[in-house]
Amino acid sequence: MRVGVDYYPEHWDSAIWEEDAARMRQAGISLVRLAEFAWSRLEPLEGRFDFAWLDAAIDTFARHGIQVVIGTPTATPPNWLVEKHPDVLPLDNQRRPIYPGVRLHRCYNSPSLRHYTEIIVERLTRHFGRHPNVIGWQTDNEMIGQESHSDGATADFRTWLKARYGDLATLNREWGTVVWSGEYTAWSQITTPLGGSPHLNPSYLLDFQRFCSDSAAAFNRFQARIIKANCPGQFVTHNLWGYPVVNDYYDLFDSMDFVSVDYYPATDLDNDSKARIYHGAMTLDLTRGVKQQNFWVMEQLSGTPGCWHPMSRTPTPGMIRAHAWQSVSRGADTVVHFRWRTARIGAEQFWHGLHDHHGEPGRRFVEFTQFSEEVQRLSPLLDGTTIRNDVAMLFSHEQLNALRIQPQSDGFDYLLNFRQIHRTLVSLGLGVDVVNWTSDIGGYKMVIAPSLYLLDEATASRLREYVAAGGTLIVTPRTGVKNLNNVCHAARLPGLLADVVGAVVDEYDPVGHDTQQIQFSDSDADAVDCAQWCDLLNPTTAEAVATYASEYFAGRVALTRNRFVKGLAYYVGTVPDAEGYRRLLTEAARASGVALTPLLEGVERSVREGDDGRRIAFYLNLTKSVKLVDTGREGGTDALEGGRVPSAFELGPMGVRIVIE
Amino acid sequence: MRVGVDYYPEHWDSAIWEEDAARMRQAGISLVRLAEFAWSRLEPLEGRFDFAWLDAAIDTFARHGIQVVIGTPTATPPNWLVEKHPDVLPLDNQRRPIYPGVRLHRCYNSPSLRHYTEIIVERLTRHFGRHPNVIGWQTDNEMIGQESHSDGATADFRTWLKARYGDLATLNREWGTVVWSGEYTAWSQITTPLGGSPHLNPSYLLDFQRFCSDSAAAFNRFQARIIKANCPGQFVTHNLWGYPVVNDYYDLFDSMDFVSVDYYPATDLDNDSKARIYHGAMTLDLTRGVKQQNFWVMEQLSGTPGCWHPMSRTPTPGMIRAHAWQSVSRGADTVVHFRWRTARIGAEQFWHGLHDHHGEPGRRFVEFTQFSEEVQRLSPLLDGTTIRNDVAMLFSHEQLNALRIQPQSDGFDYLLNFRQIHRTLVSLGLGVDVVNWTSDIGGYKMVIAPSLYLLDEATASRLREYVAAGGTLIVTPRTGVKNLNNVCHAARLPGLLADVVGAVVDEYDPVGHDTQQIQFSDSDADAVDCAQWCDLLNPTTAEAVATYASEYFAGRVALTRNRFVKGLAYYVGTVPDAEGYRRLLTEAARASGVALTPLLEGVERSVREGDDGRRIAFYLNLTKSVKLVDTGREGGTDALEGGRVPSAFELGPMGVRIVIE
Amino acid sequence: MRVGVDYYPEHWDSAIWEEDAARMRQAGISLVRLAEFAWSRLEPLEGRFDFAWLDAAIDTFARHGIQVVIGTPTATPPNWLVEKHPDVLPLDNQRRPIYPGVRLHRCYNSPSLRHYTEIIVERLTRHFGRHPNVIGWQTDNEMIGQESHSDGATADFRTWLKARYGDLATLNREWGTVVWSGEYTAWSQITTPLGGSPHLNPSYLLDFQRFCSDSAAAFNRFQARIIKANCPGQFVTHNLWGYPVVNDYYDLFDSMDFVSVDYYPATDLDNDSKARIYHGAMTLDLTRGVKQQNFWVMEQLSGTPGCWHPMSRTPTPGMIRAHAWQSVSRGADTVVHFRWRTARIGAEQFWHGLHDHHGEPGRRFVEFTQFSEEVQRLSPLLDGTTIRNDVAMLFSHEQLNALRIQPQSDGFDYLLNFRQIHRTLVSLGLGVDVVNWTSDIGGYKMVIAPSLYLLDEATASRLREYVAAGGTLIVTPRTGVKNLNNVCHAARLPGLLADVVGAVVDEYDPVGHDTQQIQFSDSDADAVDCAQWCDLLNPTTAEAVATYASEYFAGRVALTRNRFVKGLAYYVGTVPDAEGYRRLLTEAARASGVALTPLLEGVERSVREGDDGRRIAFYLNLTKSVKLVDTGREGGTDALEGGRVPSAFELGPMGVRIVIE
Repeated sequence: MRVGVDYYPEHWDSAIWEEDAARMRQAGISLVRLAEFAWSRLEPLEGRFDFAWLDAAIDTFARHGIQVVIGTPTATPPNWLVEKHPDVLPLDNQRRPIYPGVRLHRCYNSPSLRHYTEIIVERLTRHFGRHPNVIGWQTDNEMIGQESHSDGATADFRTWLKARYGDLATLNREWGTVVWSGEYTAWSQITTPLGGSPHLNPSYLLDFQRFCSDSAAAFNRFQARIIKANCPGQFVTHNLWGYPVVNDYYDLFDSMDFVSVDYYPATDLDNDSKARIYHGAMTLDLTRGVKQQNFWVMEQLSGTPGCWHPMSRTPTPGMIRAHAWQSVSRGADTVVHFRWRTARIGAEQFWHGLHDHHGEPGRRFVEFTQFSEEVQRLSPLLDGTTIRNDVAMLFSHEQLNALRIQPQSDGFDYLLNFRQIHRTLVSLGLGVDVVNWTSDIGGYKMVIAPSLYLLDEATASRLREYVAAGGTLIVTPRTGVKNLNNVCHAARLPGLLADVVGAVVDEYDPVGHDTQQIQFSDSDADAVDCAQWCDLLNPTTAEAVATYASEYFAGRVALTRNRFVKGLAYYVGTVPDAEGYRRLLTEAARASGVALTPLLEGVERSVREGDDGRRIAFYLNLTKSVKLVDTGREGGTDALEGGRVPSAFELGPMGVRIVIE
Repeated sequence: MRVGVDYYPEHWDSAIWEEDAARMRQAGISLVRLAEFAWSRLEPLEGRFDFAWLDAAIDTFARHGIQVVIGTPTATPPNWLVEKHPDVLPLDNQRRPIYPGVRLHRCYNSPSLRHYTEIIVERLTRHFGRHPNVIGWQTDNEMIGQESHSDGATADFRTWLKARYGDLATLNREWGTVVWSGEYTAWSQITTPLGGSPHLNPSYLLDFQRFCSDSAAAFNRFQARIIKANCPGQFVTHNLWGYPVVNDYYDLFDSMDFVSVDYYPATDLDNDSKARIYHGAMTLDLTRGVKQQNFWVMEQLSGTPGCWHPMSRTPTPGMIRAHAWQSVSRGADTVVHFRWRTARIGAEQFWHGLHDHHGEPGRRFVEFTQFSEEVQRLSPLLDGTTIRNDVAMLFSHEQLNALRIQPQSDGFDYLLNFRQIHRTLVSLGLGVDVVNWTSDIGGYKMVIAPSLYLLDEATASRLREYVAAGGTLIVTPRTGVKNLNNVCHAARLPGLLADVVGAVVDEYDPVGHDTQQIQFSDSDADAVDCAQWCDLLNPTTAEAVATYASEYFAGRVALTRNRFVKGLAYYVGTVPDAEGYRRLLTEAARASGVALTPLLEGVERSVREGDDGRRIAFYLNLTKSVKLVDTGREGGTDALEGGRVPSAFELGPMGVRIVIE
Repeated sequence: MRVGVDYYPEHWDSAIWEEDAARMRQAGISLVRLAEFAWSRLEPLEGRFDFAWLDAAIDTFARHGIQVVIGTPTATPPNWLVEKHPDVLPLDNQRRPIYPGVRLHRCYNSPSLRHYTEIIVERLTRHFGRHPNVIGWQTDNEMIGQESHSDGATADFRTWLKARYGDLATLNREWGTVVWSGEYTAWSQITTPLGGSPHLNPSYLLDFQRFCSDSAAAFNRFQARIIKANCPGQFVTHNLWGYPVVNDYYDLFDSMDFVSVDYYPATDLDNDSKARIYHGAMTLDLTRGVKQQNFWVMEQLSGTPGCWHPMSRTPTPGMIRAHAWQSVSRGADTVVHFRWRTARIGAEQFWHGLHDHHGEPGRRFVEFTQFSEEVQRLSPLLDGTTIRNDVAMLFSHEQLNALRIQPQSDGFDYLLNFRQIHRTLVSLGLGVDVVNWTSDIGGYKMVIAPSLYLLDEATASRLREYVAAGGTLIVTPRTGVKNLNNVCHAARLPGLLADVVGAVVDEYDPVGHDTQQIQFSDSDADAVDCAQWCDLLNPTTAEAVATYASEYFAGRVALTRNRFVKGLAYYVGTVPDAEGYRRLLTEAARASGVALTPLLEGVERSVREGDDGRRIAFYLNLTKSVKLVDTGREGGTDALEGGRVPSAFELGPMGVRIVIE
């Protein structure tokens, strides 16, 4: 377990480095990330390299026992490069350049970018690849599947399509270009989706998103190859932009040793807090799931964010520590705080670090040092532990993109719906892995697969076998609608999974914000609300779990449960409210033999386990009020304060209790 | 009376055509529209034509007794044409192309578009122009007065202006270009309104809208000429985009045999339903008014619409049938449902047809077949009947455009205000023709002419003569403000009509959303609200019908009635609320000898009459609740179910009752 | 004291001029402004000048004793110039032209604009520079620091930067371009901020705003030089767009003899009226402060504004007169109403003048003539009087721009916060001068300097000396954050002023819309609300005036008062609500020996004084309801109606009372 900070020696007079390194060491910091935006300092003019300042900075840190991760600076091509080779700039869908000055002004498909990236990364890695104080590398920073409509992107897109479809006849057929006379008769007619109309062919739009995602991943692999070749014994990672965006994270990290992530939970708890409090848990679960192993937080909350956008609330007392522990509780082995000092220059002057502009320690820094001290103290206990959960959710950038291209009804949002389910699981004290929809799921007792809108036989088979072998599967509306080319299946929904769920959709009503009701069959409790979508189900072998209680479809079946070979399959034909999900997931968990620990709102539980049977449970109160926690478990030792832990206890605002179970 | 469907043989394996045709026939369908977007299949490469597939499809339908309307495919220029002649693409006001892929990527002013249109339409019509199973043609699809700022449009716009004004001196004077030094000294200085600023000279902006409208109409006439020449005995129509847009529909259809229209009433009745329920009646009345004769619906609601935008509610039980009967009740002689099968490919996958993606008959199809059976059964009764009304509303694209260029006050919207009046008439059970403002109105007892903002002597004379001859005229605020070049008249408002209404506007207050009150003089009832605009009137010969009851103008005259020669003229100096309009229109109708049948909200009445005196009254309940209908008429026979119809009866949700009066 | 109107002879048949001039004279009008947009009439073709019409118009006015101000027409380059030299057009940040047709289509950095401006202004001024009936000139119209990204602007920007920073090394250091590899290695790499991203380097963005402001001022000086050279005895002014925009007004007017301004107070008093009623006072105070002397209103409200945007309410009875008197009360010596006749042509047809389109006198004109008669009657009393206040507010376009580039928190807006303080002062009956933040403030008893976010030693010293010498200074959150290059200071806030206020900011919380509370120490009254920002203060020598009463910082100091040498300095660490400001400013005014006259909402008091001791107090009720005014002063004579004025009296809606104290 290590604690680090992000540091920018190039922003400060070198006189200050020594003092900073000494104070870092004192605060328990054992690593810094450096140089990820410093191209103009590392190669001030074409072919003129200056690594001396970075050598000096690394030496300073080495003297204080602080190790270094170096970032490749490719997110920020310098002005001399942009001026000489304007093709490094991405073009928007009107073919207007994304001008330099704000990072990310680089087109992954630019031949010039490739050329100059190779040079700077080659030079950097040769120079530092065997440095004893450099432990690893971060490629670029926060790569997203950024669109570009440059000549390079156009050419690469055509090549990508040729590889996928072979010939135009196949492409025309698979995309259904016959609609509106969109058939291509020459490859040269295919462009990136210029103009950006959302009305374009959805198969085309989805493939372009895949291409953008692939371009980012390819650029990452390209850098990884150079780093691996020149830096034996050093790791390579990438820093993921925390919020799930359109590109495929699993792909992006296939060339990386482990995942790192930004973690900036919302500091403003009074607005829309119910949803926000749980965002963090999902970000961390999703990050852990990218490679299904522990990870790093490369940028952890240290103060209020704010730049060109207004600053939000400063972290309330305890928040910095609680969220750092939250990262650890969900699988972070290293937490790197962003950043040591708040910038005095440039566009991120108000993205606050551990110190304010004046540089003197304050409340936030003191809180950070408490965390740092605690994590070092518990390191022997935590080292080698990881998370093992009985429940998985299947996440899919494919579904996310396809459902953004064609939103299904007012309010229907893949990500929000996904989060609603994740939030319910967290509030039930259920540990959950968020994994790629193509992952092996054999080991889980219960798997939730929201909106498998695009569905192929391979995926359907995997799910069928999982249930047949005894697993519990939960699927939701808009499952099985399309093939992977974003073309509608001809079968009755849920199509390829109809046998597994034992029901078909007779018809559907995209109710959007017209709230409806469902009544659970085995309950005297009131009906609960549902919205967005109503599938009217005809069970074949399934039994009804809930029926509609409103409008012309009152009495029709809304939720089903089907015993399929050795397992169970639920089809949720609508989007219930929080209480509806709570009832459903409680029943499904019990039926699957998964243990629950219902928690009050904003309280989280996560468990790290060692191979030796150690179990360390983390209880966090991420709210501003006192909460009662009823663990349902007697005994256990308080890891930080010692002593026995009662089965029920109070946690203060931003309280953290770590229990050796 | 015929029922048809829209069909896309090119989207489906030809194996399915036979089955579809057989099932259509069984469902009473006797016609299909084909090929309106199939350019890339009809001319896959330049000069290479392939009509064999269409021959085969038409033959298949012929075998089942189903006739065909062919659409010319010019709304979708194929990729080979766009690649070879990029000038077919319209340019937006920044001169950026409207890229292909979403239909309508064709500039009416493009010489290349004209050239290739001539070729494909010539070939198509020569091939099918004498085919016994082809009964007619649809030109293009849903043409709107789309802006283009291409070289072609710029050149044509200059030519158009030369024809209109002759020389620059006249143009400068008529447009008032002296303001802000906008005088032109060479024709080359005139462009289309680049940049799209709403602050440009309003005379210029209005003429550009006229030019765009004329360009669409000219393109339609160009196609009509070819079709007429090659297709003796076949009709030519165009499919109108239902919602009144900026171009002149009367012009657009002058070369057509009759009007066809899209009819997609809103399926979501719970949001803003009061206004929405009545949209449809106005669309249909306006369509019938384009050529003042019966019409076709070329695309009738069959399922939830949805594509790039979220799907809305699926049609509630009864809705498909009720709206199809509504089309008939307001003058449709043929109803073509869009579409037989829901698309599995392309951008309109979720614009639902009669069948869902799986293709099996369901609730919606069953409902459609009920309508189809009923309409065939009543065909003998309905054939040859049409609508004859005592009341007309004057619609004007000129006013619509001019009032969009210069909105008069917050909330003042020509179309919404027009609709509010139309809605009130419908709720009073008053049949109304919505006709061009330049139409002959001699036969009507009452004419409502909302906001004749642009007013010339010819129009004023026509209205003056109409009233003088005994008609009742109702005019509203912002009448007589401008001449046809969008330049303000110097006369006191309502200017050219001041003598007819017998009052002048002393001053006005654009009250916008600051709601005011008016008190009807002959009533003890409470004052009603008004908003948007308050003219303070000085009657000359008129009497006051209502006075203001709020603010500094309390007591000033708001509404007047004037006996002018043999007729009556009302000036409504403000925009009353629904109750205010109801009082006003009730009083005006009574004064004009027009019969009323007040109806509950969402209930409609329309009457088709034959030359032989047949009168078939349609009562529709377009809501989701039961409504009582008090017809005020004894007797009559129920055309569908037989038996006497009482003077008052209940109609269930989406209920339809057809009465032979 | 003079009254005038804006007139456009070129818009009207010359036959009407004579009648208009005669009627103007009758209405007491003694001056007109002419020709400010008439370039296409003054130089119809390149090098062909036509001044005859303007000679004739001026002669007509001369015959009626009406003097003339001529506007140079450079805000509207004619079409022949645009066509021949398209570089006169500004380019937006995508380098798209701002097309002609809407005024302001001129790039200050265009060499062609300079060239043709020189010619037309030279010719005009030579022709009219000694005309006995021409009293002065207005340059251009409503110049704003409009962005342009043209080649001319790019070149000028580089030159401007060279002059400011000398070399690139300095520029890179001062801007902190090292962040994100933004270092420049050649001047050619520097462009204007293309793409317009708000995420760009804030030092760069601020300098570009300065450059734009300087370009406008330079263009104004360029014209002023020509006018001064050719027009001895005639004044030169410019007409300021009333609303404080991004350019530096102090700079813009350094070459002008006095300031003129647009004054269009909101006519819609029912929406958001509390804030709106006070806008006008601030506009006028700010205008007077530009040169700290009396001024002209060059365009005064005469009717509802409205053009491309919807018209708003027409001025309520009394409003035109009351606002004209308000202009006088706050320092206007000449009031020119916009405009005589409402335009019948062009884009401003609905920006209503004194007469409606029909041209006959109505309510508004009658009201204007009342004002005109009154102002002439009081002229002897008012001539030579001006405004002398004890309180000043420091306004800064620098802070405005810097805080727009980096908004500090949700709702934190320099201008709105400035206005809130100004409004409180007006409601306390306190006269206030709004002056440039670099002005000499020695003579004021109390100075309020909102958010001196950018702070250099020179300014800090001036403020320190002011307080040391006995003045009262009030500063607010975000003071002392940055140096003038928009780079953060390293000192604890408020940095350079920490000694003067006797307190430092321990930490801050950008609370945004999360409302908090403060409790005044010396008061039993309830706590008041505050929002946007909370500085937690550590007093060093100051005493606490108020402490927070909410959240984790309850009890921490929010407002301080510090005796510094002979004066007082308040630090307001948050943004209180209206009541909080009222308490604070009341206490500070009393402590500073400034007299208060608390007034009901919407009532204003302003005093003009003569060197001879004359004091004329204006009381205005700018609301639609009757208000009681308690002046707290016995005696005084009613200047308009004669007689003694009691210490308390009622003012009707839009009432005006002028008292010789």
